[in-house]
Amino acid sequence: MELNAPTTNMRGHRLITGYSNPLVKQVKSLRDKKHRKREGLFLAEGLRILTEAREADVLPEMLFYAGRDHELTEAMIAATEAAGGAVIETTPDILSKLSGKDNAQMLIGVYRDRLTPLDDLDRAGVDIWIVAQALRDPGNLGTILRTGDAVGAGGLILVDDCTDPFGVEAVRASMGALFTQSITVTEWPSFVAWLRGGSGELVGTSLQTDTDYQAHRYAAPTFLLVGNEARGLPAEYQAECDRLVKMPMLGKADSLNAAVATAVMAYEVVNQRRNR
Amino acid sequence: MELNAPTTNMRGHRLITGYSNPLVKQVKSLRDKKHRKREGLFLAEGLRILTEAREADVLPEMLFYAGRDHELTEAMIAATEAAGGAVIETTPDILSKLSGKDNAQMLIGVYRDRLTPLDDLDRAGVDIWIVAQALRDPGNLGTILRTGDAVGAGGLILVDDCTDPFGVEAVRASMGALFTQSITVTEWPSFVAWLRGGSGELVGTSLQTDTDYQAHRYAAPTFLLVGNEARGLPAEYQAECDRLVKMPMLGKADSLNAAVATAVMAYEVVNQRRNR
Repeated sequence: MELNAPTTNMRGHRLITGYSNPLVKQVKSLRDKKHRKREGLFLAEGLRILTEAREADVLPEMLFYAGRDHELTEAMIAATEAAGGAVIETTPDILSKLSGKDNAQMLIGVYRDRLTPLDDLDRAGVDIWIVAQALRDPGNLGTILRTGDAVGAGGLILVDDCTDPFGVEAVRASMGALFTQSITVTEWPSFVAWLRGGSGELVGTSLQTDTDYQAHRYAAPTFLLVGNEARGLPAEYQAECDRLVKMPMLGKADSLNAAVATAVMAYEVVNQRRNR
Repeated sequence: MELNAPTTNMRGHRLITGYSNPLVKQVKSLRDKKHRKREGLFLAEGLRILTEAREADVLPEMLFYAGRDHELTEAMIAATEAAGGAVIETTPDILSKLSGKDNAQMLIGVYRDRLTPLDDLDRAGVDIWIVAQALRDPGNLGTILRTGDAVGAGGLILVDDCTDPFGVEAVRASMGALFTQSITVTEWPSFVAWLRGGSGELVGTSLQTDTDYQAHRYAAPTFLLVGNEARGLPAEYQAECDRLVKMPMLGKADSLNAAVATAVMAYEVVNQRRNR
């Protein structure tokens, strides 16, 4: 055996059992945004999320597994190999190290970044798009992607300084919707120019309007604009909206979580369309 | 000066500048559930959340501040003193240590646990109650409290092994709703016995039902039952529901985040009541 040849298991998969393996270090580094950007790669974990990706025909460049007692794990391995990806067997401890979680999933995929340029979005094909401005919380971003999938949105358009959609926490919260929703990163002026170059209505939420969110008839495609968690939508962004609406607030506080507000709005749009 | 006498500032507030101060250690320990339970105390951070609490007439037993350039900070200090609480000036570094966050809020309150026994809940007074079963994510729990406040819910009833509502992350996500919503911790059999001892309809969500969540007319008070994030509602809990409903799922995945699903349901109940 050559000294530097990678060890393989009985199925011919590369076998990594040492923490100091350079590939382990490289993959672990993808938990940092800087490395994700440089490599154009990100991590997704767990059978459920990886299977969602596979069902959306998205396969990892590298697949790490530890144990393979589940038939869906076998399906992931077969699909990854068929698509030319590398399949690597490793230990639960190393998977924990890669994911940064104590109870790691037994399956981790390394995927190529999936950004869609603004000009490639086909707005005519779908009724709802979600636009987030300076969204900072990765859990909110992932949850909004998940909601987007549920309401049949075309995708998520991120403007200004949003948290990285390919961060581990956002990927987790998306529960696989990261692979079914298009994701676009752009700046506000570019977005507005693109938006006004075609059909569609931009709708924001505001406490300063009198228009109830159920009183307005949403025109397709509806672009739902959600603002930063702490500051909401800046005044000039509100001014650009074709319509500002508000949800009833019956309590002592006057706000909803950003992902929750987006979902309540999106379901109103869905309900209007299906009840028409 | 006595060697052991606490140092005070010019306003007569105790002044703590040392990390090794026993009170700092004691308060910091409240980030652990074990210590919270033993002391019956929990931490809340930040002017916004503490002010929500004050407006709900809930004041801290101890208030730590660093800097007081904001008039709301002065109002917090005055109200805490008037209620007999201890006011302590400290440094930004110590506040960071207490909260476990790099950019700590400049105000931290130590509050007495606020649990309401099941038998003290007045179900007649409000239209919506939220019941969570084995909810594990503190962000979801806090977000559900925040939604509960927005929809005018009576409170949150936690059954089975839910995450601690007084954990730092749940308190943060609640944005102060922890102080406006009642919180009850109980077990499923006790909850069911209490529920069936009075009026009210128990409604759960399920993918196995044909009843659309907008087709059902919700009877007051409505108890919305939300299940564990990963497993949903167990079959026997679904069987106890007076009604199972489902939200439309138009995407490739078949689920929503638990806090999002709760909010979409709760707004449907609100909308039916106000549009009646």
